[in-house]
Amino acid sequence: MKNVDLSKFVNPNYQPGSFLKRSLWFVFNSLFIKSSHPFTSLRTFVLKVFGAQIGKGCVIRPGVNIKHPWLLAIGDHTWIGENVWIDNLTDVSIGSHVCISQGATIITGNHRWDKEGFDLTLHPITIENGAWIGAKAVILPGSKIETHAVVSGGAVIHAIIPSFEIWQGNPATFLKKRIIN
Amino acid sequence: MKNVDLSKFVNPNYQPGSFLKRSLWFVFNSLFIKSSHPFTSLRTFVLKVFGAQIGKGCVIRPGVNIKHPWLLAIGDHTWIGENVWIDNLTDVSIGSHVCISQGATIITGNHRWDKEGFDLTLHPITIENGAWIGAKAVILPGSKIETHAVVSGGAVIHAIIPSFEIWQGNPATFLKKRIIN
Amino acid sequence: MKNVDLSKFVNPNYQPGSFLKRSLWFVFNSLFIKSSHPFTSLRTFVLKVFGAQIGKGCVIRPGVNIKHPWLLAIGDHTWIGENVWIDNLTDVSIGSHVCISQGATIITGNHRWDKEGFDLTLHPITIENGAWIGAKAVILPGSKIETHAVVSGGAVIHAIIPSFEIWQGNPATFLKKRIIN
Repeated sequence: MKNVDLSKFVNPNYQPGSFLKRSLWFVFNSLFIKSSHPFTSLRTFVLKVFGAQIGKGCVIRPGVNIKHPWLLAIGDHTWIGENVWIDNLTDVSIGSHVCISQGATIITGNHRWDKEGFDLTLHPITIENGAWIGAKAVILPGSKIETHAVVSGGAVIHAIIPSFEIWQGNPATFLKKRIIN
Repeated sequence: MKNVDLSKFVNPNYQPGSFLKRSLWFVFNSLFIKSSHPFTSLRTFVLKVFGAQIGKGCVIRPGVNIKHPWLLAIGDHTWIGENVWIDNLTDVSIGSHVCISQGATIITGNHRWDKEGFDLTLHPITIENGAWIGAKAVILPGSKIETHAVVSGGAVIHAIIPSFEIWQGNPATFLKKRIIN
Repeated sequence: MKNVDLSKFVNPNYQPGSFLKRSLWFVFNSLFIKSSHPFTSLRTFVLKVFGAQIGKGCVIRPGVNIKHPWLLAIGDHTWIGENVWIDNLTDVSIGSHVCISQGATIITGNHRWDKEGFDLTLHPITIENGAWIGAKAVILPGSKIETHAVVSGGAVIHAIIPSFEIWQGNPATFLKKRIIN
């Protein structure tokens, strides 16, 4: 059996943006997005300046952490709750009328645990219109949250959650259908 | 099937305190409660000035995040660990001799996922005397932790945990009885 | 049945370092380790000054929280991800070529929930060479992660994870073997 050797880790295909842009974002993310101020409009403005697509009527709470705003698209009337962490090494696309509740985390990077070099792999995540990601939930690479699906609070998702379904637990499993009336 | 429309979200019955009080708390929470200083007595003093009921002999660690102190009651000799998050949109009542370990989260707000307008619903949470909430546990709306119950580290609670019972997992299930001798 | 009485909690055997050293570390941890700056070499330097053993080629990301650096040993070419929390009240030993992904938490302190005085108990944690702790995982007291074991994202560990095994869920269970080729 081979062993992992992280000294051999290389990452030539991961080009998430120029060094200057990433360095500037590092500072702006700390000052204006992760910080405690309450102003959604300031967060939205700064994110858009760095290339995020954000629709109208969105709410972005304090303490949010965004890896690369130029790889983030958010629709209209979507809420990003307090301390949400969008670790978007690659594209994260969030639809309209989505609620991502407080403390939820979205992860897009995985590793080849079957390779000596532990290569990074990237997995875009899509959260479709009307979905709800509950508080403290964790959305792992390769997941997809289809329209109006619900991820229960604290659930850990390794899966494609079909539309209008509610999933719960770790690993999450189907709980019941979502009926809106 | 109807869709969610967050542009229709209204919240007329949610009146957690005057705008002035909430704004002042927003600043004081950042400066004196969530911050890194080690002084329990300063945290207790500031929380009480904003209306929290806190008994004698309590310990409140750095990095704690409290939503509305005027909706928080804590008994005597209770410990609130580092980075605990009490998101008390409504009343949270914590008894005496309770330990809430580091990184635990208490959530009181839910949404009507079965309604187009995604109405907010509030669920007071009670944690009774002698209970222990383990590190990184998540207590979800509608839960109750009865006297001397134990929530294991990282557990996610959607339930009423009976007195002197230990629960574990996500969703948490009964593990064993707590016998104190 | 007896009740817990936290006013009787005493901790005479817990001597993690002099008051001066712990106080200084409290400040340096906030300023140089938990803070947002991106410089691994600064983090490594400060940790070593306070007694941590850290090998060559390690990466330590922003937002990391270390309780007592003098109780921390890390091998070569190991990565400590963003916002990792090592709550090492006692020894935490991390091997070489280990990846601890973003947001993971390592807990070493437990309590005698079967005693009126709720005595603190300490449990050193070892994470052996080549292991991978996934994002947002929680490693609880008494756990051991053997060489090249993998803890899935968000998993909660109360166990000894055998070498070259992948575990998932809360409580975590065996998923499959790790084959590296």
